[in-house]
Amino acid sequence: MSGVASASGAGFGVWMKDVQAQTEAALGAFLPPAGREPAKLHEAMRYTVLGGGKRVRPLLAYASGALFGADPDATARAASAVEMIHAYSLVHDDMPCMDDDALRRGKPTVHVAYDEATALLVGDALQAQAFEVLAGAASVPPARLVTMLRLLAEAAGSAGMCGGQAIDLDSVGISLSLEQLERMHQLKTGAMLRVSVLLGALAGRDLAAHEQEALAAYARAIGLAFQVVDDVLDATADSATLGKTAGKDAAANKPTYVSILGLEPSKALAEQLRQQAHEALAPFGEQALRLRELADLIVQRKA
Amino acid sequence: MSGVASASGAGFGVWMKDVQAQTEAALGAFLPPAGREPAKLHEAMRYTVLGGGKRVRPLLAYASGALFGADPDATARAASAVEMIHAYSLVHDDMPCMDDDALRRGKPTVHVAYDEATALLVGDALQAQAFEVLAGAASVPPARLVTMLRLLAEAAGSAGMCGGQAIDLDSVGISLSLEQLERMHQLKTGAMLRVSVLLGALAGRDLAAHEQEALAAYARAIGLAFQVVDDVLDATADSATLGKTAGKDAAANKPTYVSILGLEPSKALAEQLRQQAHEALAPFGEQALRLRELADLIVQRKA
Repeated sequence: MSGVASASGAGFGVWMKDVQAQTEAALGAFLPPAGREPAKLHEAMRYTVLGGGKRVRPLLAYASGALFGADPDATARAASAVEMIHAYSLVHDDMPCMDDDALRRGKPTVHVAYDEATALLVGDALQAQAFEVLAGAASVPPARLVTMLRLLAEAAGSAGMCGGQAIDLDSVGISLSLEQLERMHQLKTGAMLRVSVLLGALAGRDLAAHEQEALAAYARAIGLAFQVVDDVLDATADSATLGKTAGKDAAANKPTYVSILGLEPSKALAEQLRQQAHEALAPFGEQALRLRELADLIVQRKA
Repeated sequence: MSGVASASGAGFGVWMKDVQAQTEAALGAFLPPAGREPAKLHEAMRYTVLGGGKRVRPLLAYASGALFGADPDATARAASAVEMIHAYSLVHDDMPCMDDDALRRGKPTVHVAYDEATALLVGDALQAQAFEVLAGAASVPPARLVTMLRLLAEAAGSAGMCGGQAIDLDSVGISLSLEQLERMHQLKTGAMLRVSVLLGALAGRDLAAHEQEALAAYARAIGLAFQVVDDVLDATADSATLGKTAGKDAAANKPTYVSILGLEPSKALAEQLRQQAHEALAPFGEQALRLRELADLIVQRKA
């Protein structure tokens, strides 16, 4: 996993593919082997996590890890932990009692490929695995590692991802203000994107207050941009391109940026947030190239 | 929460009630307030965790915490963390895709009192909350706290509780050997009982290898005893006494100690395991009184 340093002079596309490959290898190594008992659960965990996904959160962790001098093992653990939390949330979101989705990343969802009980357990076990993997980051001084574990728990829990999911559930058919919509997404998606950036950085060294604030401002901008673009794509792209069911939010009468602001203003907002993300990174100069490029990727992606 | 020390000269019943009250207070303090947004999720988390339960895992953590000189905050956090993991596992177990139970601790289960999506999120958020609460144990040196967080993750995940649950799911209608049944329960219930004892102890100080082995042997014995007694009670008690549906395992054709060994040999095994637990505690002498009494409680309980 020494490819991060060697790819630092390469173009963004090469770097991204390299990090995605490293993420896949790290996840494969940090997940229990498929043959180990209970074999069905472990096989389903690997089905869930491996072989797909844009790996946005690991890309953020690797980019900020490189910026703050994190070593390969600590970076790989931070990246794998946030991806495991993300993957578990997708498995539970897709279940019949939530979004009832049959397709994810172009593959049958876990409760379809296996069964609902297995999907429930896969999610539960992946959340625990994320904390186990991060807690094994032996190169990080323990005091900082405890902070990282606490930040991950906060981002995943009711003050973060689960809380945003709960607000989302309760907002179906309700008219949210732009502020309420932003608050929901800052929890549901933003908290895990933010902690991806922070864990990568903290895998490297302690952060000064102004550095932490700059990274949080960057993460806030890309978190919102991510959701605005999701809403734009949900309204404009087709299911085959997205690898999931398109037009679902509108059909479910869920509030979106497009439904509140309209399509073109939503696109303009995404561009504005991309520029905010760039500005937040100014203190880090040229070194923050990959984080800037990731902001561009998030806004300009087609799926 | 200074009552542990002051109760040390009291009888077991007084001590137990005192610890249960401290656990209730600690859980109440470590859970998000019910009024905080998202209010429904936080209210459901409190509904799940507060106001009931035997608090076996917290009792174990408090007893071993006192034995190893843990301070009140660290003990309360270890006890609350294991109880939150336990509580989340019950919520998910009770869901329609798993055991489909409507009654728990004499109250409607979470998916009945709220809805399935909320039950799913309550469990997910409680797992994250457990790690957050434990990570906040500021009196524990960080290196030991990282070990505690890792042990909790291992006990909760696919090599522990979730793994046992997966084996349990796959064993319905299948004839398990006594060894396979024991293996399932060592994961499903035993791993969390074991980590309850270990986290209490580690909240106090580092453990010598022989101390850790003695505690693990104790935990192994009470873990098995707990399950043997559960099976005996499921076969002999009524739903009102248990606070959950009785006779369910037999009806579901799940393998139990009673179905494999018979009723009287199961009772004899429980008594044998109680004695093993006492013997494992011999190195700790009189100081381990509460842990011995908890072994007695687990075997002699009526619900």
